[in-house]
Amino acid sequence: MTLNDHEANPSAVLYGIGDLRVEERPVPRPAAGQVLVRIGAVGVCGSDVHYYDHGRIGDYVVRAPMVLGHESAGTIVAVGAGVEPTRVGELVAIEPGLPDYTCEECLHGRYNLCVNMRFFATPPIDGALAKYVAIDARFAHRAPDGMSAEEAAMAEPVSVGLWACRKAAVSVGDRVLVTGAGPVGLFAAQVARAFGATSVGISDVAAARRTAAAELGFTAYDAAHLPEESFDVLLECSGAPSAIVDGLRHLVPAGRAVLIGMGPDEVAVPLPLVQNLELVVTGVFRYANTYPDALDLIARGAIDLRMAITHRFTLEEAEQALTIARRDERTIKPVVLP
Amino acid sequence: MTLNDHEANPSAVLYGIGDLRVEERPVPRPAAGQVLVRIGAVGVCGSDVHYYDHGRIGDYVVRAPMVLGHESAGTIVAVGAGVEPTRVGELVAIEPGLPDYTCEECLHGRYNLCVNMRFFATPPIDGALAKYVAIDARFAHRAPDGMSAEEAAMAEPVSVGLWACRKAAVSVGDRVLVTGAGPVGLFAAQVARAFGATSVGISDVAAARRTAAAELGFTAYDAAHLPEESFDVLLECSGAPSAIVDGLRHLVPAGRAVLIGMGPDEVAVPLPLVQNLELVVTGVFRYANTYPDALDLIARGAIDLRMAITHRFTLEEAEQALTIARRDERTIKPVVLP
Amino acid sequence: MTLNDHEANPSAVLYGIGDLRVEERPVPRPAAGQVLVRIGAVGVCGSDVHYYDHGRIGDYVVRAPMVLGHESAGTIVAVGAGVEPTRVGELVAIEPGLPDYTCEECLHGRYNLCVNMRFFATPPIDGALAKYVAIDARFAHRAPDGMSAEEAAMAEPVSVGLWACRKAAVSVGDRVLVTGAGPVGLFAAQVARAFGATSVGISDVAAARRTAAAELGFTAYDAAHLPEESFDVLLECSGAPSAIVDGLRHLVPAGRAVLIGMGPDEVAVPLPLVQNLELVVTGVFRYANTYPDALDLIARGAIDLRMAITHRFTLEEAEQALTIARRDERTIKPVVLP
Amino acid sequence: MTLNDHEANPSAVLYGIGDLRVEERPVPRPAAGQVLVRIGAVGVCGSDVHYYDHGRIGDYVVRAPMVLGHESAGTIVAVGAGVEPTRVGELVAIEPGLPDYTCEECLHGRYNLCVNMRFFATPPIDGALAKYVAIDARFAHRAPDGMSAEEAAMAEPVSVGLWACRKAAVSVGDRVLVTGAGPVGLFAAQVARAFGATSVGISDVAAARRTAAAELGFTAYDAAHLPEESFDVLLECSGAPSAIVDGLRHLVPAGRAVLIGMGPDEVAVPLPLVQNLELVVTGVFRYANTYPDALDLIARGAIDLRMAITHRFTLEEAEQALTIARRDERTIKPVVLP
Repeated sequence: MTLNDHEANPSAVLYGIGDLRVEERPVPRPAAGQVLVRIGAVGVCGSDVHYYDHGRIGDYVVRAPMVLGHESAGTIVAVGAGVEPTRVGELVAIEPGLPDYTCEECLHGRYNLCVNMRFFATPPIDGALAKYVAIDARFAHRAPDGMSAEEAAMAEPVSVGLWACRKAAVSVGDRVLVTGAGPVGLFAAQVARAFGATSVGISDVAAARRTAAAELGFTAYDAAHLPEESFDVLLECSGAPSAIVDGLRHLVPAGRAVLIGMGPDEVAVPLPLVQNLELVVTGVFRYANTYPDALDLIARGAIDLRMAITHRFTLEEAEQALTIARRDERTIKPVVLP
Repeated sequence: MTLNDHEANPSAVLYGIGDLRVEERPVPRPAAGQVLVRIGAVGVCGSDVHYYDHGRIGDYVVRAPMVLGHESAGTIVAVGAGVEPTRVGELVAIEPGLPDYTCEECLHGRYNLCVNMRFFATPPIDGALAKYVAIDARFAHRAPDGMSAEEAAMAEPVSVGLWACRKAAVSVGDRVLVTGAGPVGLFAAQVARAFGATSVGISDVAAARRTAAAELGFTAYDAAHLPEESFDVLLECSGAPSAIVDGLRHLVPAGRAVLIGMGPDEVAVPLPLVQNLELVVTGVFRYANTYPDALDLIARGAIDLRMAITHRFTLEEAEQALTIARRDERTIKPVVLP
Repeated sequence: MTLNDHEANPSAVLYGIGDLRVEERPVPRPAAGQVLVRIGAVGVCGSDVHYYDHGRIGDYVVRAPMVLGHESAGTIVAVGAGVEPTRVGELVAIEPGLPDYTCEECLHGRYNLCVNMRFFATPPIDGALAKYVAIDARFAHRAPDGMSAEEAAMAEPVSVGLWACRKAAVSVGDRVLVTGAGPVGLFAAQVARAFGATSVGISDVAAARRTAAAELGFTAYDAAHLPEESFDVLLECSGAPSAIVDGLRHLVPAGRAVLIGMGPDEVAVPLPLVQNLELVVTGVFRYANTYPDALDLIARGAIDLRMAITHRFTLEEAEQALTIARRDERTIKPVVLP
Repeated sequence: MTLNDHEANPSAVLYGIGDLRVEERPVPRPAAGQVLVRIGAVGVCGSDVHYYDHGRIGDYVVRAPMVLGHESAGTIVAVGAGVEPTRVGELVAIEPGLPDYTCEECLHGRYNLCVNMRFFATPPIDGALAKYVAIDARFAHRAPDGMSAEEAAMAEPVSVGLWACRKAAVSVGDRVLVTGAGPVGLFAAQVARAFGATSVGISDVAAARRTAAAELGFTAYDAAHLPEESFDVLLECSGAPSAIVDGLRHLVPAGRAVLIGMGPDEVAVPLPLVQNLELVVTGVFRYANTYPDALDLIARGAIDLRMAITHRFTLEEAEQALTIARRDERTIKPVVLP
């Protein structure tokens, strides 16, 4: 046990809109079946920024102080009862949503839809923007040898893309259109390429983001002028109603659309198009059974993390990490290294 | 050959809005691979009424006189080259859409999405409301022994429900909600029951239609007051935006929705719901490879046709068949017997 | 709590080949999350008979005294911590295999393939041929109102058929061949009919069994003379190599075969046939997520239990229940009522 | 029309076992819907060698002189009625099996299982080892710009691997075992990698073939000593019974096996393993809808053709191309350039 019981656990806690405080919290003790992880890196997600800016996302409202952060990795420093002690020292990516394992959704293999899901940094569950986190040993996924903590932390956004590509059954032969060249879109596009997609194009309204997409080797389209060609798969990452509708209009008969980006509560959808072409439209809610594969994609270099990880901060600078996106149009993904 | 070359071919031809004329047309000669069918029964579909009332459905505009009718059956009276002459005398249900067989959609088994589809009573293709029709022998499906022409003609609307149930993969264990208790909904509900659905409920705004649903053994809901329970599958047959949205809101996680009824060009859809529950939404455009199974469902009594076939007319009375729905709220399905 | 702590728990314990003893065992106390069930009925399965006759099934060897029986139902008489006390009094069907919920197979929704599965009456786990059994509350499935215990116990063999029909995706349009008209085959055939199969035929070598199949409304074939027609689905319930091979030879291109009956360790399979017709061959190992649907099939009368349940015994007569099959060729399913 | 009517059409015709003659045949005239292709390259397949050596493959017997060869590509030199004349000059890969487009299998999108399939170099249909071939314009697939004829000809064996990977649904996360490192196996392995497989291992009994596999970046196993690990997918390319059985034994629960290599008429298969692990076993018969994607995989460099194409011959040397495999253990794929 490398952990000093009296050691502190500085944590980035959201108290309200625009009110983030780094404060000491007790170091959690790993319960039976858990591991204690010293966090090495936490990626900042748009949802973290949204809670910071608005204090809520839809029905999820921050009513009590909550630690932010759910894209994390670190080193196991202690294990609870029933966990192999040799795991101490492992670098692990932390899958941030713990299901109840036993509800109907879980028993059908859809644990991401578990109604009792406890997900990091989703009120009232604390996240990983801290020095120490305790987590179910099964959801601490061993990183391949030679991987860094910040690389391992990216298994979370890669998982989002991976789950979407599974829903769309992306494979060799598919021409894929990704709408939105933010972090979610760039990860999804790279995952689609790893799934064998014949071609992957990305659209965005912002020239800087299109440049980022092009630098990763993708065909970048101005969202206002999509090409005349059709696509087999739409991975919608912007949440923008116009992107959703335009994307659907560019699908082939029997094309598949997966809605990833969160948009407004209602969108005017051309349903006769869905009917006449028998399009299949679905959405993703987090992911299930993706972490080992996401880590493997990162390990084999299928995901360019230099493009993804653009700024680094200490835990004390967490607030800067949350706000930098306002000042840098090209910001892709700030990472906090506690 | 039982056909007299000089025999007439009275046909119900739509000349414009509200302008239906029964006129003599030449008896078609069956080309190679075709059969000539003496029509025994033609069901009147909402689309026939819509062309009669509006002269168009969406982008399909009646620009030249067109024979109506696509739910038909009759007796083979002659065959073209290459067709087994013993087929003369067969009672057949006519599948009304002829694909090109060779486009990419056809080669993938999605012939209903064939871009060169020639579909009865869809401008500019003539339909079956006539005494004689020539059709590709493969699309003249032999009716089981003992079936009547009007029963066989119902293979068309049954096919719509069958295709929808295939898209939704309805099976034992599924609680199915059908929205809309018109002919399409009542057929779809009965097909869902034949697919083994654990329960099938139907909603409608009209009490008379709910009564019809209840008489078929279904739980009937007032569309304004759906129950609190959730369903695995939504078969949307009304096209009404409120029914679509309410239906989606009553689905379980990973529930499936198939849009059958035609509604407005755009509907405000709660996409976050689709995402959070990972609903799968698709639509149907006609059907493929359904006719033999639809005929079998009818033959084994899985579809109650007494409820479906409510009024009978001669070909000369075709205009009455198209307009009776205006006068009888309970009208389900008028049939013309040429 | 309706249970007297000093009450006895007579149990039918297998000590060795042909050595079954009814002895007193302690009444189990329901642990947290468990319910205690007073068993009302236990069906006798071929596997029970096989353990009685041979002391083993393949690699599963009875090394210590073991209670037999896994097709059971009864009444909840006590609940452990965390279980709703109002469940006392419920009639429940007991799903007899408890997975670990958290292994990779479980997380993918394939809990029947859980490597840590604890399954009733599979060495070294005790079964349900006793007065009292404690079981995870989630695996005690409430029976529909008005169902008897012996009907509810049949949810187990019905589940086998249900799982096989799910694997085969049996639906409207499928012509199904069931090989073997023993209890497993008769249940599977009835389930296939409930799934909407267009036709279901059953083959057996024994005339008495063919008669049983015919009385349930199925076309019965002498296994030595299968008809010339082809089938879409094979549900193989005999385990006999000749039935497997003959069954495969009667499948259409892209036909599906599910192996249910246990046969020899190796079977000479015509693999070029599997290749040339692109047949899909798989097998079933118990079932997952079937119990509510099996109970529903029984409740709606889709399964004829008069045919299935043919003899009734008390717990003291358990040995007779295991051996009656030797004396009555038509025996389908003896049931023990503790 | 660039074709001189009097031009000759030298063709490699198999007259009997070991009796291949290059003889003049008339230049075919492209019928309506056809194109005439001047062949640029023909790969030699194991089936060509088998017909040369044995005069038959299973039930397919060479009863009349037949042109060999079905892996071909060339340049369109003339078109039949109804084909766009601008196609003259296109380099095309020839998909060698023409279905009837209209049988039940075709209408379901399984045209490779068409019962009226006319497949090159399968008795009595002539193949492509000739100077000119006429083919349905739809089955002459335009090669991407810059591709050579011999590269385009490889779309055929790549299609075999592609179809198998589709059947197995190979994707990111799958550990794939390919048994047999001959041409079929090496192509299939490379295709599996392009489908995103997490790992691909190949086994073979021959060290030279293992070396070839290793040079392509695959982990190569001695077929006699497979590793202890398990695989998600088996792509069986050897046809050897021991490889089939060993391969199945190395699959995970719910693993998928696709039988590609042709073996003996019967193989002793451990069916209890298929049942206990719920393995899914199927086979492939040629391919459907693969050519454009196979050409794309070649164009993007996913398939190493230097390894595949090892010897080149003129049409007059066709017999050497058929027999060189006997003399060179490492021979992978001889190509004839007419």
